[in-house]
Amino acid sequence: MTPPAVDLTIVGSIGIDTIETPTEKQEEILGGSVSYACAAASFFTHTGMVGVVGTDFPQEYRDTWTKMNIDLEGLQTEEGKTFRWSGVYEENMDNRRTLSTDLNVFETFSPELPEDYREAPYLFLGNIHPALQLHVLEQVRNPRFILIDTMDLWINIDKENLTKVIGKCHMLTLNESEAQLFTGERTLNKAAQHLLELGPEYVLIKKGGNGSMLFTNDDIFLLHAYPLESFKDPTGAGDTFAGGLMGALAASGRTDKEAIRQAMVYGSIVASFGVEEFSLDRLQQLDRDKIELRVEEFKGMCKL
Amino acid sequence: MTPPAVDLTIVGSIGIDTIETPTEKQEEILGGSVSYACAAASFFTHTGMVGVVGTDFPQEYRDTWTKMNIDLEGLQTEEGKTFRWSGVYEENMDNRRTLSTDLNVFETFSPELPEDYREAPYLFLGNIHPALQLHVLEQVRNPRFILIDTMDLWINIDKENLTKVIGKCHMLTLNESEAQLFTGERTLNKAAQHLLELGPEYVLIKKGGNGSMLFTNDDIFLLHAYPLESFKDPTGAGDTFAGGLMGALAASGRTDKEAIRQAMVYGSIVASFGVEEFSLDRLQQLDRDKIELRVEEFKGMCKL
Repeated sequence: MTPPAVDLTIVGSIGIDTIETPTEKQEEILGGSVSYACAAASFFTHTGMVGVVGTDFPQEYRDTWTKMNIDLEGLQTEEGKTFRWSGVYEENMDNRRTLSTDLNVFETFSPELPEDYREAPYLFLGNIHPALQLHVLEQVRNPRFILIDTMDLWINIDKENLTKVIGKCHMLTLNESEAQLFTGERTLNKAAQHLLELGPEYVLIKKGGNGSMLFTNDDIFLLHAYPLESFKDPTGAGDTFAGGLMGALAASGRTDKEAIRQAMVYGSIVASFGVEEFSLDRLQQLDRDKIELRVEEFKGMCKL
Repeated sequence: MTPPAVDLTIVGSIGIDTIETPTEKQEEILGGSVSYACAAASFFTHTGMVGVVGTDFPQEYRDTWTKMNIDLEGLQTEEGKTFRWSGVYEENMDNRRTLSTDLNVFETFSPELPEDYREAPYLFLGNIHPALQLHVLEQVRNPRFILIDTMDLWINIDKENLTKVIGKCHMLTLNESEAQLFTGERTLNKAAQHLLELGPEYVLIKKGGNGSMLFTNDDIFLLHAYPLESFKDPTGAGDTFAGGLMGALAASGRTDKEAIRQAMVYGSIVASFGVEEFSLDRLQQLDRDKIELRVEEFKGMCKL
């Protein structure tokens, strides 16, 4: 039987995380950018995961993805251990410190897309080495919409390849400090202008609990974060936001500005649920109705 | 001739500031909470200023206020020097450090309201000692809407009087870190719940360049800051925001939630102009048409 074609392909890291917050510590939990992003996208569209795990990867975590209807044909299993990351959040939860990183099988990861993933109209290049992001672009067949994420590490060590791959994508997303690091600009308006000059039509700047901003050459869209009474773990919130955005956009079948604004709302709301618990614990219990309810509540909060 | 009655009375500090930013230094410029707040309110309504200056206060600064049609009947001139403040902004302009504070005539300031100010339907108690704020409340005759501002200093040294005066006001405004300092709560939702229990119907939390949040017992309103390409001096932005808000609210003649949301938009937009230059330099050049244009542009940026 041919596996069903996917509407959205997501490439990124898969990790087993140990995370300490001011109130709680959880060990060896499911993490990684592609895990958060696919879980978020799965509420909206049929999503294929491209990533790598080691032979030690728990069947339980694989089952979590399967239950969320994520397509795993692009998941590679390599001899060795799965990528491990551990970090600790400071008192205010705004900053975190990495305690250890063991790349393991992720060190030699080369993303290879199954045949039917190459035809997916939507592609999300999660945060991995820009050379690997370029390698993915060599395999796909003219996707309608490509979103690329990155991080400070690649800005610091391989800005050349990063600039090259950004130029081939429709939308770039990064967080506030990364936008400033990349461009040296003080205001986000100026940083975004600089980044738009690299080629993408959209620059999406994430500001964590302070929302996000979407820049084009013509206008700016401002989006709040849903205000939570409490939250447990912000790890993966940016990936959840971007994954939910791409899932909702793929479901709309559109790529215009208005569709992107709506997709951002969905991504942001899914992310607001995600941080309420560690790992995918909250997203696993979530359904489309709960998402729609919070979207409506949120829109009421923003009404001018 | 009887001076014309004012619709809005604002009480606060008047200072002569010396401010250093990463790119520029300006000495002995007009500052103080009531100066910024009255200037912002003056675009919308007839505003009376209650504050104190010394005999050294430049006529030029008095003329600036008069040209903006601010009523100065409540301005006291005392023998001695005007309050001086100097501060320096860090590289990212998010934090500033006070270099010196010379209270001078402000040390013995006791706000005395002219007769017709006591009848004003709207009152903004700017950031001064809570005992002085209470003294103002003893003089006014049942205003329809009272906004109170404060700062970390009063939370630390006179929480008792501050709590007492907050309980007599309709709206409390403070910034993010002050809300957390006052309540010990980590999230703004919980901090706001705590502050609403003190009595005010509205709690408005300012987040600088990240906007503001209005809490009631029933709902939350989220407002962005207008994204600027560049700005010169954030001093007084919170006072400008609150002053513009109260001016627009007084002009509406209303005190309901919908009117407050609209007034917040106006306050925020006036503040976005204010920070483009030092002191009142930008506000002096501003008019209602320019404000309306930016309000319309801003609403387009927030459209969901």
